[in-house]
Amino acid sequence: MDNFLGFQTKVDFYGCDSEKINSPEFIEKTLLSAATLMNLSVVQSTIHEFSPIGISGVLVIEESHIAIHTWPEYNYVAIDFFTCNKSYLLKEGILWLKEQFSALKIEIKNDNRGNLEITKQYSHTNEN
Amino acid sequence: MDNFLGFQTKVDFYGCDSEKINSPEFIEKTLLSAATLMNLSVVQSTIHEFSPIGISGVLVIEESHIAIHTWPEYNYVAIDFFTCNKSYLLKEGILWLKEQFSALKIEIKNDNRGNLEITKQYSHTNEN
Repeated sequence: MDNFLGFQTKVDFYGCDSEKINSPEFIEKTLLSAATLMNLSVVQSTIHEFSPIGISGVLVIEESHIAIHTWPEYNYVAIDFFTCNKSYLLKEGILWLKEQFSALKIEIKNDNRGNLEITKQYSHTNEN
Repeated sequence: MDNFLGFQTKVDFYGCDSEKINSPEFIEKTLLSAATLMNLSVVQSTIHEFSPIGISGVLVIEESHIAIHTWPEYNYVAIDFFTCNKSYLLKEGILWLKEQFSALKIEIKNDNRGNLEITKQYSHTNEN
């Protein structure tokens, strides 16, 4: 079993279709569909359109959050998945999103959060 | 000048006061105050209370987002700051949050997102 509380996957999508990734409707619909495809349960969706260009969006999910930021002028999208377990279809979701954005290249980095050994050292319930 | 579009700082707070970090009112008020202190402009705030314990929250800010997840049973809080520039008071905000959570230990990791050299290679405007 993993020794961490949170699991974070950061994906950079390069060479995306700039029109698509500048549409708040497209971004929201695509993120919601991705969450469904990945077996993640959406609690709330917030999409913000920047002036003159670019979208920020966050889905709060039961398992933590998904955040997106788009730079249409650079054909670039950053997405973060932050979850409290790994029982979801991460790879399938990322490949599906790559298709939706017409991305030419993706880079994926993983990170773990909340080391259980350290939480034990600093747990208040261990205090005498 | 930095060669990236996004700047991400991930902070792990260990040994936090479990009552404080299980209060949605406290978490929202504290995050909003931190954003103000750090000179970040809040667009929208979403706080979600888990059953039986734990809080998730996201502030969409003009500069990108701040996300928080708390595990009161482990006295642990994860916060991510994702911004499109570095002109904000990051260090001051983190130290202030440490005090508010009564955290005993913090760990900070930084990451850059959206490499400008790669965006140039995959830019559609370079196509003939």
